[in-house]
Amino acid sequence: MKLEINQAVTHQNSQRAQQLRQRFRQNGIFCLNMIAAPGAGKTTLIERTIAALNRELKILVIEGDPHTHLDTDRVTALGAQCEQINTLGGCHLDAEMVANALKDRNLNEVDLLILENIGNLLCPAAWDLGEDKRLVVTSLPEGNDKPFKYPETFLLSQVLVINKIDLEPHLPTSTHQICHSALQVNPQLEVFKLSCTNGQGLERWLNWIRTQCRHKRSPRCTRCP
Amino acid sequence: MKLEINQAVTHQNSQRAQQLRQRFRQNGIFCLNMIAAPGAGKTTLIERTIAALNRELKILVIEGDPHTHLDTDRVTALGAQCEQINTLGGCHLDAEMVANALKDRNLNEVDLLILENIGNLLCPAAWDLGEDKRLVVTSLPEGNDKPFKYPETFLLSQVLVINKIDLEPHLPTSTHQICHSALQVNPQLEVFKLSCTNGQGLERWLNWIRTQCRHKRSPRCTRCP
Repeated sequence: MKLEINQAVTHQNSQRAQQLRQRFRQNGIFCLNMIAAPGAGKTTLIERTIAALNRELKILVIEGDPHTHLDTDRVTALGAQCEQINTLGGCHLDAEMVANALKDRNLNEVDLLILENIGNLLCPAAWDLGEDKRLVVTSLPEGNDKPFKYPETFLLSQVLVINKIDLEPHLPTSTHQICHSALQVNPQLEVFKLSCTNGQGLERWLNWIRTQCRHKRSPRCTRCP
Repeated sequence: MKLEINQAVTHQNSQRAQQLRQRFRQNGIFCLNMIAAPGAGKTTLIERTIAALNRELKILVIEGDPHTHLDTDRVTALGAQCEQINTLGGCHLDAEMVANALKDRNLNEVDLLILENIGNLLCPAAWDLGEDKRLVVTSLPEGNDKPFKYPETFLLSQVLVINKIDLEPHLPTSTHQICHSALQVNPQLEVFKLSCTNGQGLERWLNWIRTQCRHKRSPRCTRCP
């Protein structure tokens, strides 16, 4: 019974997500859906990305949060546009919420759309938000075993950020081991190892964002020599 | 529509949880329901508790995990009894799962029952498992703001463990600030600040467990001078 209801909701969600995807494509927007456990560093990664790219890209962030607008305050303080979605305890964003948040926005003025999902490694995995890439962020203090424990999220993502690598000397966990575990679950993952604290690895991440946005703005470039 | 279904399920869950609570009381068992984000250190805290108390208390652990038995392997290696619940991607334990896991157990041989819930700060909050105390574990790397972002879990818990305090010199977060935020959300929380890595604060935690188990075994002692 519950499964049937969930399937119906998910089918409706998929249709809504496809409409969003088409709208993003028409406007040349690169859209990233960020999923992570609480405290993995999603907002800090968004802050670093805005601080570095705000002059060359028009960035819009949708902040999913169970109750607060703490992350929205951090993001708008850096000059990015932001929409807040409060789920009132709900454990994931869905495509309808994203569509509602964007309904009055002129998306022609956006290059990069970042969807910061609710801090949860399980529930958001089932919900397509119309994104181009799904990004899972994990951090070194969480341990080596998370890809095995939450395989849906790692399987359904295309990109992995391993954050807080500056803490490696103080922890029993290993960047290499987390990467190895994640690639065992999903060998197709594109992996970034970085620290938002000391900036290590950030330049490669920022260049990847630049490239993705360039390809979305001028899709034919991907076929050029 | 969805709310009605959830309410019906929760009512059924509450009845099942009350049956469990009665069974735990009849057998003099102290039952702890541990809730935390992935990687906060629930399993490591259980390991430290078993290593210190296994000779004086009969400990049974129920390991909730979306897919793996990694934590069960860690717990049984220390000599504790353990039951595995795999939720197959499900985001919380419910009372029916716990009752099924315990149906063939002689609970007369248990003093302390630890329920390690699924790594998730949102969904487990709504599900009573028949526990005596609900414990939320948060760790320093997760940041100062989690009590405000996940208030249901902090409000519905009686006990808070702030873990990984040994990392404070390497982080922008503060044990004091996390404690302050948590007590703003729920002033009744009993708070333990500890490090499972260097053992700081563990003795007070272990003494609290000893006291809770003693009171459940001999409830009249709480009224003695």
